[in-house]
Amino acid sequence: MVSLGEVLLRFDPENERIHTARSFRVFDGGAEYNVARNLAKTFRQKTAIVTALANNSLGRLAEDFILQGGVDASEILWREEDGIGANARNGLYFIERGFGLRSASSCFDRANTAISQLRTGDIDWRKIFVEKGARWFHTGGIFTGLSDTTPDAAKEAMQIARDSGAIVSYDLNYRDSLWKMRGGRDVANQLNKEFLLFADVAFGAFNFDSKLSNFDENTFRRATEKMMNEFPNLKVIVSTLREVHSASLHDLSGICFYENQIYKAKDYKNTEVFDRIGSGDAFASGFIYGLLAGKDVQYSLECGAALGALVMTTPGDNSISTLSEVKNLMAGGNRIIQR
Amino acid sequence: MVSLGEVLLRFDPENERIHTARSFRVFDGGAEYNVARNLAKTFRQKTAIVTALANNSLGRLAEDFILQGGVDASEILWREEDGIGANARNGLYFIERGFGLRSASSCFDRANTAISQLRTGDIDWRKIFVEKGARWFHTGGIFTGLSDTTPDAAKEAMQIARDSGAIVSYDLNYRDSLWKMRGGRDVANQLNKEFLLFADVAFGAFNFDSKLSNFDENTFRRATEKMMNEFPNLKVIVSTLREVHSASLHDLSGICFYENQIYKAKDYKNTEVFDRIGSGDAFASGFIYGLLAGKDVQYSLECGAALGALVMTTPGDNSISTLSEVKNLMAGGNRIIQR
Amino acid sequence: MVSLGEVLLRFDPENERIHTARSFRVFDGGAEYNVARNLAKTFRQKTAIVTALANNSLGRLAEDFILQGGVDASEILWREEDGIGANARNGLYFIERGFGLRSASSCFDRANTAISQLRTGDIDWRKIFVEKGARWFHTGGIFTGLSDTTPDAAKEAMQIARDSGAIVSYDLNYRDSLWKMRGGRDVANQLNKEFLLFADVAFGAFNFDSKLSNFDENTFRRATEKMMNEFPNLKVIVSTLREVHSASLHDLSGICFYENQIYKAKDYKNTEVFDRIGSGDAFASGFIYGLLAGKDVQYSLECGAALGALVMTTPGDNSISTLSEVKNLMAGGNRIIQR
Amino acid sequence: MVSLGEVLLRFDPENERIHTARSFRVFDGGAEYNVARNLAKTFRQKTAIVTALANNSLGRLAEDFILQGGVDASEILWREEDGIGANARNGLYFIERGFGLRSASSCFDRANTAISQLRTGDIDWRKIFVEKGARWFHTGGIFTGLSDTTPDAAKEAMQIARDSGAIVSYDLNYRDSLWKMRGGRDVANQLNKEFLLFADVAFGAFNFDSKLSNFDENTFRRATEKMMNEFPNLKVIVSTLREVHSASLHDLSGICFYENQIYKAKDYKNTEVFDRIGSGDAFASGFIYGLLAGKDVQYSLECGAALGALVMTTPGDNSISTLSEVKNLMAGGNRIIQR
Amino acid sequence: MVSLGEVLLRFDPENERIHTARSFRVFDGGAEYNVARNLAKTFRQKTAIVTALANNSLGRLAEDFILQGGVDASEILWREEDGIGANARNGLYFIERGFGLRSASSCFDRANTAISQLRTGDIDWRKIFVEKGARWFHTGGIFTGLSDTTPDAAKEAMQIARDSGAIVSYDLNYRDSLWKMRGGRDVANQLNKEFLLFADVAFGAFNFDSKLSNFDENTFRRATEKMMNEFPNLKVIVSTLREVHSASLHDLSGICFYENQIYKAKDYKNTEVFDRIGSGDAFASGFIYGLLAGKDVQYSLECGAALGALVMTTPGDNSISTLSEVKNLMAGGNRIIQR
Amino acid sequence: MVSLGEVLLRFDPENERIHTARSFRVFDGGAEYNVARNLAKTFRQKTAIVTALANNSLGRLAEDFILQGGVDASEILWREEDGIGANARNGLYFIERGFGLRSASSCFDRANTAISQLRTGDIDWRKIFVEKGARWFHTGGIFTGLSDTTPDAAKEAMQIARDSGAIVSYDLNYRDSLWKMRGGRDVANQLNKEFLLFADVAFGAFNFDSKLSNFDENTFRRATEKMMNEFPNLKVIVSTLREVHSASLHDLSGICFYENQIYKAKDYKNTEVFDRIGSGDAFASGFIYGLLAGKDVQYSLECGAALGALVMTTPGDNSISTLSEVKNLMAGGNRIIQR
Repeated sequence: MVSLGEVLLRFDPENERIHTARSFRVFDGGAEYNVARNLAKTFRQKTAIVTALANNSLGRLAEDFILQGGVDASEILWREEDGIGANARNGLYFIERGFGLRSASSCFDRANTAISQLRTGDIDWRKIFVEKGARWFHTGGIFTGLSDTTPDAAKEAMQIARDSGAIVSYDLNYRDSLWKMRGGRDVANQLNKEFLLFADVAFGAFNFDSKLSNFDENTFRRATEKMMNEFPNLKVIVSTLREVHSASLHDLSGICFYENQIYKAKDYKNTEVFDRIGSGDAFASGFIYGLLAGKDVQYSLECGAALGALVMTTPGDNSISTLSEVKNLMAGGNRIIQR
Repeated sequence: MVSLGEVLLRFDPENERIHTARSFRVFDGGAEYNVARNLAKTFRQKTAIVTALANNSLGRLAEDFILQGGVDASEILWREEDGIGANARNGLYFIERGFGLRSASSCFDRANTAISQLRTGDIDWRKIFVEKGARWFHTGGIFTGLSDTTPDAAKEAMQIARDSGAIVSYDLNYRDSLWKMRGGRDVANQLNKEFLLFADVAFGAFNFDSKLSNFDENTFRRATEKMMNEFPNLKVIVSTLREVHSASLHDLSGICFYENQIYKAKDYKNTEVFDRIGSGDAFASGFIYGLLAGKDVQYSLECGAALGALVMTTPGDNSISTLSEVKNLMAGGNRIIQR
Repeated sequence: MVSLGEVLLRFDPENERIHTARSFRVFDGGAEYNVARNLAKTFRQKTAIVTALANNSLGRLAEDFILQGGVDASEILWREEDGIGANARNGLYFIERGFGLRSASSCFDRANTAISQLRTGDIDWRKIFVEKGARWFHTGGIFTGLSDTTPDAAKEAMQIARDSGAIVSYDLNYRDSLWKMRGGRDVANQLNKEFLLFADVAFGAFNFDSKLSNFDENTFRRATEKMMNEFPNLKVIVSTLREVHSASLHDLSGICFYENQIYKAKDYKNTEVFDRIGSGDAFASGFIYGLLAGKDVQYSLECGAALGALVMTTPGDNSISTLSEVKNLMAGGNRIIQR
Repeated sequence: MVSLGEVLLRFDPENERIHTARSFRVFDGGAEYNVARNLAKTFRQKTAIVTALANNSLGRLAEDFILQGGVDASEILWREEDGIGANARNGLYFIERGFGLRSASSCFDRANTAISQLRTGDIDWRKIFVEKGARWFHTGGIFTGLSDTTPDAAKEAMQIARDSGAIVSYDLNYRDSLWKMRGGRDVANQLNKEFLLFADVAFGAFNFDSKLSNFDENTFRRATEKMMNEFPNLKVIVSTLREVHSASLHDLSGICFYENQIYKAKDYKNTEVFDRIGSGDAFASGFIYGLLAGKDVQYSLECGAALGALVMTTPGDNSISTLSEVKNLMAGGNRIIQR
Repeated sequence: MVSLGEVLLRFDPENERIHTARSFRVFDGGAEYNVARNLAKTFRQKTAIVTALANNSLGRLAEDFILQGGVDASEILWREEDGIGANARNGLYFIERGFGLRSASSCFDRANTAISQLRTGDIDWRKIFVEKGARWFHTGGIFTGLSDTTPDAAKEAMQIARDSGAIVSYDLNYRDSLWKMRGGRDVANQLNKEFLLFADVAFGAFNFDSKLSNFDENTFRRATEKMMNEFPNLKVIVSTLREVHSASLHDLSGICFYENQIYKAKDYKNTEVFDRIGSGDAFASGFIYGLLAGKDVQYSLECGAALGALVMTTPGDNSISTLSEVKNLMAGGNRIIQR
Repeated sequence: MVSLGEVLLRFDPENERIHTARSFRVFDGGAEYNVARNLAKTFRQKTAIVTALANNSLGRLAEDFILQGGVDASEILWREEDGIGANARNGLYFIERGFGLRSASSCFDRANTAISQLRTGDIDWRKIFVEKGARWFHTGGIFTGLSDTTPDAAKEAMQIARDSGAIVSYDLNYRDSLWKMRGGRDVANQLNKEFLLFADVAFGAFNFDSKLSNFDENTFRRATEKMMNEFPNLKVIVSTLREVHSASLHDLSGICFYENQIYKAKDYKNTEVFDRIGSGDAFASGFIYGLLAGKDVQYSLECGAALGALVMTTPGDNSISTLSEVKNLMAGGNRIIQR
């Protein structure tokens, strides 16, 4: 499985605020990358990240994380940099995970990164899909929103992936900060539609409110049926459902449309949240794992919801859970300490 | 805005207990000071603290915090000390923030501090209120309870503040430890009455139970009307309302009497608490901010309740929130991560 | 009061997972030892631990903890070791305290420890019970499950304790990991029955579900009456009752059978949990304290439940609460900060 | 005293390497700013920093440091940013302090910062020098090397400073990373010459090797006499002298040319180094302090060398020494513990 | 072995400065106590501390350290305190260990402590020396300098110790901060002479420069012979010899006068220093250990010098070395890693 | 390049002592493994570790480190374990890096590990050397000393490696703890001779004192010529030369015998040492890198000495240096900060 996207360094002030902190923990993150990371570390799938990094000690730190995550780092494009980051940088983000009434909040510093400069032709996709035989390709709205060149770079990859028989998934992820100066959500959605033409699996749905307490099966059916008509390659549409009681207490579930049927995952209600960031990506990776492992849609959906819930119990974007924990939670949870 | 009070160093064992800890984080704190600190850091008002510190490395550490908080430190009286703290010390307190069933608890070591020795005439209040033009003066029952000399020092300041046209607020704060050997709450209250004669704004009310679940508007009205009659300068009486489900879960609101009307803030129910210390002071600073910024009483009260609630989500006595977060919470909260 | 059991070093990755951690806090732990530890530190009773440790820097670290806990360390058997731990080791365990949906989990590394090799005759029990005059002896199913030699070593101690007039308590603790290769719970229970013949007090009951929401007084009565008949020395049977809403939220209570009557402790509902490990041991120590201090069974039970609840609010196996906190909680809790 | 320059956030992996770190301490830094910071914190002079920051939580973190350092933050230009740092960023640098054979090393991420976009007219210098009456203006080769617009911005400030009677100092600081793509040291030096025309005091000298073991008074005299001829406003040229035995062991001294005479500071030989970064800036601030305090050149030089040496004994760019420590060291050092 | 003296909590900012720190590690310390602590922990002797502590969580923290150190805590006088420390406090000190050119420095906050109020008759010394059979009594100039009542309390103890046949040692320790307001070193020395009349062993000598590079045997002989004449009970005078190259590099040795002969320890030259505090106390404890263990004076002196040197390689006042490490170092050191 | 050996988890109390620590950092280590780790991370060679781990969270933590180090983890044998480590464990060691006079010291807990149970036939070496085409095989005296089965397992690998044309290196590493109960160094050396029959490259030499100040070329020549005669396959013998001034200050160099010539590396004198552990393994990896990269013996030796010196400047067994740093140091070092 191969993801195309940015790998950022995440700086986390833990219980403090960014604007008064005196130290930061650092993690790796990046929406598309997180999916590959979780598939490798939790589900022990062979995954690779296709990205570009500036070749300095921050880029090498990102690589250190990628390797630790068990993700193949051999497809990274290394860009030499000029000493101050004028020609190419590595993406950074500073994020507070929030607590109770205080929401998670972030400060992105990702302009002019190496990966945002990726262009058609930079990557030898044929090697990846044909020679190496990747079975699944994943990218999403964060990557395609990075710059004016990344959409074409994504389309190239998706086309070759499709041609080689790999499954293509696309996450309708949206970051306000990326589009603030470039037309906002409408322009982003317009662009996203171009990619859905290549996709088998979509994470997220247009015109659908993913708030759990507002969930209405008919609305979801209407939204997904419309998408199915518009994007003929699309086979599955899947989305998290979430209710945010506070930064420390969420409900989480998942919903899926496949072959004219709607599947819903078990609700995880009143779940204590340590760090919600990356929960949607973990959900996606659990769902993909199920399909890669030959499970049915309901199982895959439950697997996504379980990992999406578990990843919120640990620091960092990514799950450091194990497959047996995911299965245990899917089976109802085991609240006895194993000892 | 000028506060008169003690600046203490707060030693916090974080998740540990004081009596078995091996390290402590240190913060600044002090009831009257906290109000100035929050007004400066969160609300970006120009504030100053009038206090006295022993001139040793602990006093300079307190100054380091005051500066970081954006509070003017130029009105601090520096007392030379004798090498062991016999003539003058700096106030210290050791506090556990508590967790669940385990309540917050503290150990104060504030006897014989430089500020407790403050006397009438030590401070050039005329310079502060007339030359520098301070618009608001705040002090309270912690400062006036420090020693037998601080009441007169407070009265001097309040009188000159009134004369110069500044608004005077007084917090009916009570610390059992300060009065344990000196007559307890009755004597303290008796003393507090002397100060309310000078005050425009009172935080706290006599004979009123601030437990939210016991809240009764009529009781509050009776209590405040009685105070209004007794203290003719008083224009506003404002108090937090709180319900402590556990050290980790509170409800918080606020109540205010002004021009014969009662105003009540929105209730923040089932709020996860990281550190409750300083929540009342933050409430006061939010309320003062509203008035300083020319807002009405209801807005000011909501502003106080919002900051009082937010300050409980971070470590330390003082808020490290921003004005936009306060406004966001007042507007209903935004549970979406900004990214 | 004297406990016989293993003292382990507990390695705790705090908020992280064991399999990705880069640092560990270390604590002391061990089911039987924890009882002596809490009695010494919280209840200020004179207690001793009888155990064996390999004489290397890890064994000395265990001793450092034992001394800090105020437990008499003079009855420790020190075994010389061969440099790699082939002849005797010190017990280690790695434990995650869990969070929300993610359960606590552990990895024990306690094979071939010095204490698991303890044999009849290794300890001069007559000195302990006759010369030194110990009044209470405690051991349990963890110690007796360590190896094939520890059951006889336990029986020797229990017999001499009884003969000397000391009260004997036995905890029906069971660890799956100890019995996985040796017959599981059935064999363990069979063995436990041999020890109950010597015991005055049993912690835990056969055939009884200690889940609080399933609690039924009649079931408990039937289970304990049957035990009373089978083990004629038994005077008291006491057990925690617990409901695990999530790793971070428990209910806790306790139940006791004594002189044909059933006593139940107050329920601590929706208690926020920091670290549940050792809660049952703390419950036992609170109960023993009550009896040692000459209190009645209801008081002792409440004391056990209160400490069992408090110990979950701090890191580590053992309580770092004080007697006054326990009494405060038994009296209904004081949610006001003492300051 | 007013400095014009960039304030960066410094990320420090402490004993680790950047490319494998999992947490970073954060400090403030910036060559010109450091001079103002040390003058405020160590020498208790009133100083201000003129800079520009992007108005996000990283910019506010920089402000938090500036305030803690006692530096006036009211002349900061706040630039709104677009959410990803495309229009304006805050400068970051990642630095390892080195150890023994392993040299200090860094990774700068300072392209496109708010301050690098500063232009003539952005700052109301007349207010600063005329109304507020600043007595000393300092800037240097880092600021002027930031971009193509900063040289003119610097010249504007220097001219107005001169006109208002303030002393002007300029540091011939050079960063390879800033000039790597823009012509290197030759172009930088050429540019520096334009600024020396405005300067009374120069830190650093052209064509002079500041390695202590290579120090030769005649070479220094020749170099400085030549500069004096070329730059008629120049009155003092001052430079550190340094010998790097290893990253952990330096010799430090200083040298000065003034009114045709050469002054040399005491040599600090075999000085254990904790963190060398900022030592040159601390040297400059000590020298400026001497002159501001009306001391002679030799005293000022000794003061610079002493602070330059002391700052290497603490983490971070900036000195957290006190004036009494500087004086003590200048007087020969007191190796007895004061207690 | 019994020590009489103050137990303080030591707050240590590690690599930071006190006046800018944000956290402190805490240790136990106190000159006379340290001797008992090292004898217990390193040399595994039975020791007790006689002191007084205020009964609050800081006092209990001191007790937690005393127990961890293996020192008998049962002779501590617990004083109830009034909530703010007006009637009795616990001693605190804040200390920086220094680095290179930056000397160690401290800030004591020890006025009005419980122990400084100790009076004749407070302690049942007869129980300690006669019933419990203590063989050695140690106190010194810090304890006797605490207040006007501690000298008589010390004399009472020394007299009873002598009468019971215990050896009495006295350390001529001097703290400027204790005597600054009470006459300085001259008055302190005058007082010390009263105690030397009771002492068998003196640590330190009058009129002797303990700087190693100034060491002259004849000067030492003259100084000690004079003392021997003046104080007829004195049998041994022993002192460290030290050379402070920097806070991070010392030479250490020891010198002793006994039965008209001078003994000198091996010189530890160019010893890297992590934390020098407590080195003199460790030296004393090594020397006492030698005598308690029946070794000769030269061995005892070497033992003192070795522990005095080792204690400087670890944080905190007290040695966390083992007897085998001390012996290894006395035997020339083993630079091979044991593994 | 493939290494065969144990991967241990290293627990490091940093500045503290093991026997009083309250937390430990954890690293990966293991003599043979370290060589592969450094080759991968510093020299960016493709390396794999052949080892066995117990399949629990500690084993997965070891894997997490291996992946982070960039070493291929696909040849690890995973052994199921019984819950307490009776059938198979993972190796642990606790190590203090030492400081000044206090030597590094360790406590190994490596008995009965999964890898110590490795037997002939457990690994498909033919796949590794023939199919995958490994070019270099490395193992040594730690692995072969683990148990009675590891020698044959090593011989099997060495034979197949030789047969496949890979270079075979063997490190004459000796751990007293492994042989304490099994005949000591003589038996170990006897065993080592069996392996040298298969080796092309030997690290270490019999009958040679590697203390730098004792270095004598003739002694080295005699020792190595004798070995060359005894072990006909041997082509290169290489050894570190070291002088331990203190735990914090070493000299390091290297020496090599090849084709009848002796090569000596540059001496790194008075090198400040942060953590010496793993320095010999880093030296070996530098030397191997040189040969793998086609450099001559002198270059390879210098490369080994440089990395051996650099690895002592960072925490942990393994180098986190980069190739450019190694080259920089080989070229004389660059003491200027790159910025």
